[in-house]
Amino acid sequence: MTINDVCAILKEKNNFEILTHASPDGDTLGCGYALCLALRAMGKKANVITEAVPEKFLYISKTAGRENFEPAYIVSTDIAADSLLGSNTEKYCGKINLCIDHHGSNSLTAEKKYVDSTAAAACEIIYEIINNLGTELTKEMADCLYTGISTDTGCFKFTNTTAKTHRIAAALMEAGCDYSRINKVMFDTKSRGRLALEHALYDTMEYTADDRCAIMCITLRMLEALHITHEDTEGIEAIPRQIEGVRIGITMKEKEDGAFKISVRTNEDVNAAEFCKQFGGGGHAAAAGCRIEGKQEEIKQILMKAAEQIL
Amino acid sequence: MTINDVCAILKEKNNFEILTHASPDGDTLGCGYALCLALRAMGKKANVITEAVPEKFLYISKTAGRENFEPAYIVSTDIAADSLLGSNTEKYCGKINLCIDHHGSNSLTAEKKYVDSTAAAACEIIYEIINNLGTELTKEMADCLYTGISTDTGCFKFTNTTAKTHRIAAALMEAGCDYSRINKVMFDTKSRGRLALEHALYDTMEYTADDRCAIMCITLRMLEALHITHEDTEGIEAIPRQIEGVRIGITMKEKEDGAFKISVRTNEDVNAAEFCKQFGGGGHAAAAGCRIEGKQEEIKQILMKAAEQIL
Repeated sequence: MTINDVCAILKEKNNFEILTHASPDGDTLGCGYALCLALRAMGKKANVITEAVPEKFLYISKTAGRENFEPAYIVSTDIAADSLLGSNTEKYCGKINLCIDHHGSNSLTAEKKYVDSTAAAACEIIYEIINNLGTELTKEMADCLYTGISTDTGCFKFTNTTAKTHRIAAALMEAGCDYSRINKVMFDTKSRGRLALEHALYDTMEYTADDRCAIMCITLRMLEALHITHEDTEGIEAIPRQIEGVRIGITMKEKEDGAFKISVRTNEDVNAAEFCKQFGGGGHAAAAGCRIEGKQEEIKQILMKAAEQIL
Repeated sequence: MTINDVCAILKEKNNFEILTHASPDGDTLGCGYALCLALRAMGKKANVITEAVPEKFLYISKTAGRENFEPAYIVSTDIAADSLLGSNTEKYCGKINLCIDHHGSNSLTAEKKYVDSTAAAACEIIYEIINNLGTELTKEMADCLYTGISTDTGCFKFTNTTAKTHRIAAALMEAGCDYSRINKVMFDTKSRGRLALEHALYDTMEYTADDRCAIMCITLRMLEALHITHEDTEGIEAIPRQIEGVRIGITMKEKEDGAFKISVRTNEDVNAAEFCKQFGGGGHAAAAGCRIEGKQEEIKQILMKAAEQIL
């Protein structure tokens, strides 16, 4: 399928439901609402179907209230697999007409698929679709799309960012998107809980292999004592690797069943997936994980020894 | 002057010295070295004159070693005033032939000036100059220019970022700049000292006015005990304002003479400059400062009362 094919379908059909993935993030919500607004601007009926929207993304879901109509065509955005339909699985699994996504690994069950794995965010694809449909790119659509692009690229920092990503960002700024406020909320705001958690984690940080490995530990007791929410812990695994000189950053997270979830983040020459493989885990070259059962201190010693051997 | 005028001069002259400002940052160094490389590519002689280059910017200054020649034409980049010539004041003040800058307030003494205050970074101007000169934009030049743009815009987050900024970033990426590594060093790396300082500051954080004001205090004793360098404290004033719900973030910093330097950062509706004015200070709407003499605890109480009154 080409973008033209996608647009021909969107022009032909009506009464759309647009699905977002479970635990919705900036990209899936940005896609869903921008596409919904564009379809409505074309005089069509459309709704976004989403699980509870996190508070910081409410400005996105506020752009399009719910309309009443009988749905006739189901589009998914940024959903890579059936398992990511979450609470919408029963109602929608196997019934999706058109899947729009940027995950190369996409395995979603859908009648038709448009997957562009060179897009840093699925919102890049929706931008192209809106452009191609010929509807005006409004400020509201631009806010949605900028959010997806900015959050999926770590504000243009990650290696998925391309020249095209920047050119689309330029167009979104010209459409009046509120980039400064969006980035402030996404990247320059810390909850009191997050601050307290980072403070507590500092005290658990241990270094080994000439300070080239840092390891920290999140315990259930810590989360409870500090009243930490799930959102407060988002991306916390990035901390050990951010420390100057650290090449292997490890986060141990105690689970309810007594095991520990291990997140490994590495710099440059160290392969995180290989590191985790020896413990039955896997992942990417710079970010991988595994699960280890046992006592906190013993697991920490095992991981530190493994790091010393690699470094 | 237009960009064409600037380029005509650069084509005509030879044996350039390119000045950077005191305590050089990513923008002034990026400008200086990119321009130096472009002039050399045109077969001309050029050197960059700079104070000690911070370690994290050494990859920029490594791109162009020193050449031997008798300087004939002095260009300044990103230098807004004579006072910012630093240790180069005696030798160069009043002798600058061409000033290239993006500070609207530019007051530098120079024979000719090209100042574009719509440029988010002076590196945007150098990009246009290189483009206009017709020399090939190399990866090394692109690394220099990307560094200036990325650091001066907080990685495309600050309000000075424009659509043009993103379009230039796109061109720099196509020229092969190592954006991911550059951004990692600039935005995703914390020294052990910085980490220790943030940890210590957490314990000094106090809240008032229903948690809409946060205030923290850096003491000389703290800096000494933790062996904190000047670089470790860079941008630390941003922390209180980053806390969710905080509208006035205040940092008190004890100085050697016993006074306290106060940095105020505000969100949206609170004017930082007006807040500081009552203490004889000033600045911008969202970032301002003042100096207060007295005892730490007394100053803190005064500032907290002032915040309560505004909020």
